[in-house]
Amino acid sequence: MQTGVCYFPEHWPRERWETDVEQMAEAGLEYVRMAEFSWGVLEPERDEFAFEWLDEAVSLIGEYGMQAVLCTPTATPPKWLVDEHPEILQEDPDGTVREHGSRRHYCFNSERYREETERIVRRVAERYAENPHVAGFQTDNEYGCHFTVRCYCDDCAAAFRSWLKEKYDTIAELNTAWGNRFWSQQYDSFEAIDPPGPTPAEHHPSRLLEYARFASDSVVEYNRLHVELLTEANPEWFVTHNFMGRFPTLDAYAVSEDLDLVSWDSYPTGFVQDRQHDEATPDQLRAGNPDQIGMDHDLYRSTLDRPFWVMEQQPGDVNWPPHCPQPGEGAMRLWAHHATAHGADAVCYFRWRRCLEGQEQYHAGLRKQDGSPDRGYHDAVRAGTELQAIGDGPIENVDASVALLFDYDALWALSAQPHAPEFDYWELLEAFYGAARSRGVQVDVIHPSFALDDYELLLAPALHLVTDDLAKRLTAYVEEGGRILFGPRTGVKDEYNKLRPTLQPGPLSDLVGATVDQHGSFPSRMERTVTPVAEDDEQYAARTWAEWLDPDDAELRFTYQSEGIEFGRPAVVENTVGDGTVVYCGVWPGPDLADELVRPLLADASLPYSEQLPQGVRIGARAGHTWITNFSSERYRIVARTDASWVVGDDTLEAFDVAVAEGNLVDGLSIEPV
Amino acid sequence: MQTGVCYFPEHWPRERWETDVEQMAEAGLEYVRMAEFSWGVLEPERDEFAFEWLDEAVSLIGEYGMQAVLCTPTATPPKWLVDEHPEILQEDPDGTVREHGSRRHYCFNSERYREETERIVRRVAERYAENPHVAGFQTDNEYGCHFTVRCYCDDCAAAFRSWLKEKYDTIAELNTAWGNRFWSQQYDSFEAIDPPGPTPAEHHPSRLLEYARFASDSVVEYNRLHVELLTEANPEWFVTHNFMGRFPTLDAYAVSEDLDLVSWDSYPTGFVQDRQHDEATPDQLRAGNPDQIGMDHDLYRSTLDRPFWVMEQQPGDVNWPPHCPQPGEGAMRLWAHHATAHGADAVCYFRWRRCLEGQEQYHAGLRKQDGSPDRGYHDAVRAGTELQAIGDGPIENVDASVALLFDYDALWALSAQPHAPEFDYWELLEAFYGAARSRGVQVDVIHPSFALDDYELLLAPALHLVTDDLAKRLTAYVEEGGRILFGPRTGVKDEYNKLRPTLQPGPLSDLVGATVDQHGSFPSRMERTVTPVAEDDEQYAARTWAEWLDPDDAELRFTYQSEGIEFGRPAVVENTVGDGTVVYCGVWPGPDLADELVRPLLADASLPYSEQLPQGVRIGARAGHTWITNFSSERYRIVARTDASWVVGDDTLEAFDVAVAEGNLVDGLSIEPV
Amino acid sequence: MQTGVCYFPEHWPRERWETDVEQMAEAGLEYVRMAEFSWGVLEPERDEFAFEWLDEAVSLIGEYGMQAVLCTPTATPPKWLVDEHPEILQEDPDGTVREHGSRRHYCFNSERYREETERIVRRVAERYAENPHVAGFQTDNEYGCHFTVRCYCDDCAAAFRSWLKEKYDTIAELNTAWGNRFWSQQYDSFEAIDPPGPTPAEHHPSRLLEYARFASDSVVEYNRLHVELLTEANPEWFVTHNFMGRFPTLDAYAVSEDLDLVSWDSYPTGFVQDRQHDEATPDQLRAGNPDQIGMDHDLYRSTLDRPFWVMEQQPGDVNWPPHCPQPGEGAMRLWAHHATAHGADAVCYFRWRRCLEGQEQYHAGLRKQDGSPDRGYHDAVRAGTELQAIGDGPIENVDASVALLFDYDALWALSAQPHAPEFDYWELLEAFYGAARSRGVQVDVIHPSFALDDYELLLAPALHLVTDDLAKRLTAYVEEGGRILFGPRTGVKDEYNKLRPTLQPGPLSDLVGATVDQHGSFPSRMERTVTPVAEDDEQYAARTWAEWLDPDDAELRFTYQSEGIEFGRPAVVENTVGDGTVVYCGVWPGPDLADELVRPLLADASLPYSEQLPQGVRIGARAGHTWITNFSSERYRIVARTDASWVVGDDTLEAFDVAVAEGNLVDGLSIEPV
Ligand SMILES: [Mg+2]
Ligand SMILES: [Mg+2]
Ligand SMILES: [Mg+2]
Ligand SMILES: [Zn+2]
Ligand SMILES: [Zn+2]
Ligand SMILES: [Zn+2]
Repeated sequence: MQTGVCYFPEHWPRERWETDVEQMAEAGLEYVRMAEFSWGVLEPERDEFAFEWLDEAVSLIGEYGMQAVLCTPTATPPKWLVDEHPEILQEDPDGTVREHGSRRHYCFNSERYREETERIVRRVAERYAENPHVAGFQTDNEYGCHFTVRCYCDDCAAAFRSWLKEKYDTIAELNTAWGNRFWSQQYDSFEAIDPPGPTPAEHHPSRLLEYARFASDSVVEYNRLHVELLTEANPEWFVTHNFMGRFPTLDAYAVSEDLDLVSWDSYPTGFVQDRQHDEATPDQLRAGNPDQIGMDHDLYRSTLDRPFWVMEQQPGDVNWPPHCPQPGEGAMRLWAHHATAHGADAVCYFRWRRCLEGQEQYHAGLRKQDGSPDRGYHDAVRAGTELQAIGDGPIENVDASVALLFDYDALWALSAQPHAPEFDYWELLEAFYGAARSRGVQVDVIHPSFALDDYELLLAPALHLVTDDLAKRLTAYVEEGGRILFGPRTGVKDEYNKLRPTLQPGPLSDLVGATVDQHGSFPSRMERTVTPVAEDDEQYAARTWAEWLDPDDAELRFTYQSEGIEFGRPAVVENTVGDGTVVYCGVWPGPDLADELVRPLLADASLPYSEQLPQGVRIGARAGHTWITNFSSERYRIVARTDASWVVGDDTLEAFDVAVAEGNLVDGLSIEPV
Repeated sequence: MQTGVCYFPEHWPRERWETDVEQMAEAGLEYVRMAEFSWGVLEPERDEFAFEWLDEAVSLIGEYGMQAVLCTPTATPPKWLVDEHPEILQEDPDGTVREHGSRRHYCFNSERYREETERIVRRVAERYAENPHVAGFQTDNEYGCHFTVRCYCDDCAAAFRSWLKEKYDTIAELNTAWGNRFWSQQYDSFEAIDPPGPTPAEHHPSRLLEYARFASDSVVEYNRLHVELLTEANPEWFVTHNFMGRFPTLDAYAVSEDLDLVSWDSYPTGFVQDRQHDEATPDQLRAGNPDQIGMDHDLYRSTLDRPFWVMEQQPGDVNWPPHCPQPGEGAMRLWAHHATAHGADAVCYFRWRRCLEGQEQYHAGLRKQDGSPDRGYHDAVRAGTELQAIGDGPIENVDASVALLFDYDALWALSAQPHAPEFDYWELLEAFYGAARSRGVQVDVIHPSFALDDYELLLAPALHLVTDDLAKRLTAYVEEGGRILFGPRTGVKDEYNKLRPTLQPGPLSDLVGATVDQHGSFPSRMERTVTPVAEDDEQYAARTWAEWLDPDDAELRFTYQSEGIEFGRPAVVENTVGDGTVVYCGVWPGPDLADELVRPLLADASLPYSEQLPQGVRIGARAGHTWITNFSSERYRIVARTDASWVVGDDTLEAFDVAVAEGNLVDGLSIEPV
Repeated sequence: MQTGVCYFPEHWPRERWETDVEQMAEAGLEYVRMAEFSWGVLEPERDEFAFEWLDEAVSLIGEYGMQAVLCTPTATPPKWLVDEHPEILQEDPDGTVREHGSRRHYCFNSERYREETERIVRRVAERYAENPHVAGFQTDNEYGCHFTVRCYCDDCAAAFRSWLKEKYDTIAELNTAWGNRFWSQQYDSFEAIDPPGPTPAEHHPSRLLEYARFASDSVVEYNRLHVELLTEANPEWFVTHNFMGRFPTLDAYAVSEDLDLVSWDSYPTGFVQDRQHDEATPDQLRAGNPDQIGMDHDLYRSTLDRPFWVMEQQPGDVNWPPHCPQPGEGAMRLWAHHATAHGADAVCYFRWRRCLEGQEQYHAGLRKQDGSPDRGYHDAVRAGTELQAIGDGPIENVDASVALLFDYDALWALSAQPHAPEFDYWELLEAFYGAARSRGVQVDVIHPSFALDDYELLLAPALHLVTDDLAKRLTAYVEEGGRILFGPRTGVKDEYNKLRPTLQPGPLSDLVGATVDQHGSFPSRMERTVTPVAEDDEQYAARTWAEWLDPDDAELRFTYQSEGIEFGRPAVVENTVGDGTVVYCGVWPGPDLADELVRPLLADASLPYSEQLPQGVRIGARAGHTWITNFSSERYRIVARTDASWVVGDDTLEAFDVAVAEGNLVDGLSIEPV
């Protein structure tokens, strides 16, 4: 396990640098990420380069036994470049240009900007190609931040047309594939197709999905340019990109294919405020939601089936969410452990020292503005020492037997047609994911095209677009003994975001053994309940979306219990196909219903699982160790089936505390309030 | 009574058409509406017409004994036309162009678009002029949908100036009529007047009202073009337009003058979500609000004093409201009966089959996406059979003795100056309308310029702009024995949206026998109460708006009872003028106060009325029958004064159920919970 | 004490004017303000002037023994001018032009508009230079209304660059001062700097602060042009401007430097609805919040340390807030007394008569639309008579021993980086100000650069930007025996809105005797409590912002008591420096905590103070009299230490009532519910 930090030497006097670097080394940090916004410093005027400062910083880092991770500085094209070539700027759908003055203002499809990118990346890469202290490179910074993936400029219009021409032989084929006769939306040529701009009513869902795919592909292509230049300069470097939490416009699987290492930036107390439908609880404001960040850890681990890095770990209070509470006592330590349990090989804190200038002055660092240690510093040192004890350097990856199927196409299609303001694909995924996690079970978050054979159980809520090929692969998986738990809104669309002319779940109907008779959404004040057919005195809450199922071969598991129109109708069914089992759940389940669905499947697969964990406590097993992490302000006692040998902490969990034991304690473990 | 359906043959394979049409005929449907968005299919390239598919569809419909209702396809100008003439597109006040990619993107004042309209309408009309299976035509589709009546493009600017020149002799006259010396808003020529664009503060209310009138008139003129071309082609056709629920920018009275038949599109569970201030109740999410749709039924019946059609009846779940719940059991049947009771001659369901493509995939049809019958199908067949039993073909129209005065000028003026965020003219109207409907009384919804003599009682809340002529007509009406119940904000403005230099209600002061001393609005948490002068232990709730009255000849009826500044002041007064009675109510009444005002006037007019009905139950009387419709999930027993002979159902109303009896049972009827 | 009224003769027939003016005189009014929006009437076409009407109105006013206050009519450039020179219009950040059609549509930096201003102002000034009935002039009207201070047009871009060149010697100096190396935001020339337009992420805080300063300075410069022209025409005239309540973009101190008299426009029931974070209470909807308007009275009195005018006093219901309730009985009288107690020398009501035309028809006047007396009329006459009894003409100014430090730079900096949606600098100020006011203590609201020596106590919450010079001045003030109560977010930034490289409160750390260890914001549902170290069974509520203090020399006063991470940490400390005392409060205090902090400092300074007053009751002492004003609907008894001699009212306060006694009764006075 390794730790690192993000550092901006260009913000500080040179005479300070050695002190800083020495203190980093003392703190046990091994990597120093630098230069992701430095274009203006590296090239203050066109072709006037100033690399000496970065040379010196890298040297110092090497001197103190650490390694530099450098970045291509393309996230912030300097003003002189924007003034020379304003056409590189992004445009909103209504034509408003996104100007210089913050960051990420360039368009991914600007030919000019790609040339400029090639020029600066080549320059940086060549400069450090032989430098022994540079371990690898990060491309750009947080693609997609501030909703910058989808641009609507002329370059994008042209690129979209080319992308479509590449995909469709003729415009007639496109018109048919999308269903453009609806509302007279036919195009007579590819040239007639624009990015989706302002219109009186909503856009055609097929056009929107294709624009989403195109925009994501533009980033893939743009990132590949960086990767190629960096790899050309030094094939030994690892090349990574720092993704973000639940960024909705960029296919992380596709970008990752070109990377050696996947990393992401984890800000737990920010994410619960701005990418979660329910209001953050006080505990979440102190430490975040472990399933929310856990699902991202698992996503980024699963992209390459390889340990990942947290390239930016929240170090304390941060500036960008609505509120900026201080994290709970020990939260920064907790996050480092939690990330490790989910497969992180390194945790790098953002940033070394609170910045005196610009937009991020209210963002903490490991050090305060005066250079003295901040809360995160102490947590980071402690976590580093503790994790070092578990393994020096990379440790064995997480081995998961359960996979959650995550499809960006589904995300994009459902975002265009949510049909309930609170319908959020990520949160529906989390409802199923959380059921496994609340039983201490590790989960891979994979694309449906990934190999399925190694998994005992697949969780597949809202597997919205299903091709015949995918249906075949899923059927084969089940026939060979696999288990799938489907969720609502599965099998609705074809690959062009058109409805299938068969009843939902379309090509999965035989596998599921049932079809969907009706669907409907409803506001939270109309929460529905379901009851198991066997024990109809038990009620389980469900929300937002209700499908009435029509079982064919499948067996009835749950019916609607809430009064009114759904009462008594099938809500969950189970089917046996070959050696495997398929459960289809037509509602968005509350936590208890999700548990009632997942637990029996875990048992059927003979997978070890714990007692149901409290909301804020999660277990992770990796590399012969078990982590128990407490994201709540409650005290708990850990009751394991076997005697635990504690490497970190012990069987008492304080607020925001962590304990690590040798071996895998998951089976039957329970967490009890103290 | 007749039923029909909307069908899009162009979305389906030709080999399917005959099956579809056969099934329609089997279902008892008599009309098939088609082609309202078909321009792109009818004319895929300029002057390359493709009518064969529609010819064939019309023939099939005729073969199976049904009639086609065709549409002018102008709501969706195809992309090739937009590309040729982008100047036909609408513009937002800030100049943002509303592009192709959904529907209704054209400007009503585009000369070019009027030419194109003439070209395509003439073509379509001539094609079917001799066709025996075409019963009539619908012009365009839902004028005003997606807030498209008011456009701000250069064509509109020019047309607005012409419209003003037509109305005012000189610019000086306009300046005086509007009061433009206020804030130096004088114009020195008509050319200096623009559509109301972005300004630092709010716009001049006179300018806003005139722009609203002009924009509505533009639609009238545009629609007239369609009507003339269609009538020219075949004078036997009926020409209709499908209005919508509470569309705020289009004067339905004015458009209707050119039509033979008025129709509208009724989506009860959508309307309660997006055009009602209070959050929809669970029952409303299942079946809608009977007074909300009832008031629209009555409006569209009253425009031509003639039975109307529901051209699009909600068939099940729909895609466009925030939530898309399944309607209650039998709701589609309920709506057909309710529409009939309010004067519908035909109910056509939208649409035949759930569409696989484009924006409306989440909109149900009578048939599911696979062609099998959906919930609406069964309801439609049942309603069709039941209604057929009451009368084959057109039946006698509703005969109402009460009229609600509805004035689009008031709507536009009050929308510009609501002076309370929750002040909604429609909902204030509904407060008075609902009081009559909750007593089983039929109501016409008429323009103040309509003949008044046939009515026993006029309801006139917020009759905001009152000319001297209108004041004279209302006075004459009362003198001859009529009754008027005025509501707050009556008699405030002159016809140019200027305040009158007399106390409110201005020219109605003598009629009312009182003036308004003060007015004020307040938030819902400050709800006021009033008490009858006779029985001051009774309290009635009032909301949003309070006027303090100053009775002259009038008698005091209610005073404010809530503590504080209004306490004891006059809130409602009554005046006797000639043989008639005038009540002026200075507050927005809650349901019980509204009943206390309306009931005595019904009694005074010797009109039969029922006991006060539950919120969700409404009665309609028409053509020798009485409908009792239950929009709630409660069970009720119907207790009539005389023995009922039930044509549909019986005296027990299930949830969302309907019963129809022979004769008029309204007098004294009561509804009791079971 | 004097009263006046705003009058628009141009809105009424000439034959009415003498009646109006006679009635004004009868009502005891002494000043009549006119012509602030009259450009279109004064100059209907370019160079065609029409002054006769205004001449006549001024003459009439003089005839009836009153004085006219005229206005430069620049707030509403007429349409012909806009059509000639559309470049004078304001632009939004995205380039949208703010068109003619309301008011304040001109850009302060338009050279053309400055020329036009000079032309019209010179004309008006010369016309009345010799007129004996014109007492003075108001410049323009409510600079900044409708967010019009910050414009983003090309003229503003050029002016901003000039302003920066004036301030910074070189672009390198600017880059360093702002910290532009952050995110590559360096400029290579002044020409490269634009107004802050649309960007993907938030703007650089230094750039935003400088733009805010520049925009405010533009108004200062523009106003100075008026002042110079008016003074040149007649040096005897007073020149004033009518500021507004809590206008956030204009430095009132800077504008006032050029004025002879400061005036402002007070709309108590509007302000509580649109510039207060908490929902207005029913009492506030009836009479406003006395501390909200009191703080503005005190600000405008303190700008020139001179009595001020209320140029526009709310006369009844007003049109622009969300709701328009009728003010409480006597509220208009109450406001006149309250203003006088705070240092007003004149109260002028807006307006004489409800206007029949344009945007303000729903704005009451002293007279109704028909000319009859309205509620405000009776209140105004009564207040005028009562105040006349206290002093005819100007009376002695308020003498305050407590000052609140108010800094527009802090306002602008904190608005750009609030870091909590409910963080509002004005309201934080009000929390401290209100503590003094709830003890009957008068407060000056001064800029930190003002002389401090006369004050016994300074209140300084969020004194955000602190230069070394200011730190020195504050230290000297304390050393010489002064007292300062600092609030949270003090001493955070340097003058360029950069963080200081020392711990907060930076250069004030020695004075405070403590530094800030951590800070955090939190939502209202996580309200924190603090407890005095001496009596830890008492708890006081605090909100929004929490700093953990690290006392050095300072003594601990309060610690956090709420459970969780802050528990037990220092929240308030006190330090002794020289002969003085400094208290630093790290939280946003609730009313009781604020009282616990302020009261001991008042006692220490031997300032007289009352018992803690109810929320709605406030006391003012001025010119040998004591005003007790009741902004609530409760009845109260006034219990004074000494026998009171009542000039107005007596010791019983009715709802919205006022009492005035001779002498200063503040010491120990208490208010008891009846
Ligand atoms: Mg694996
Ligand atoms: Mg009739
Ligand atoms: Mg003073
Ligand atoms: Zn682009
Ligand atoms: Zn237009
Ligand atoms: Zn400007």
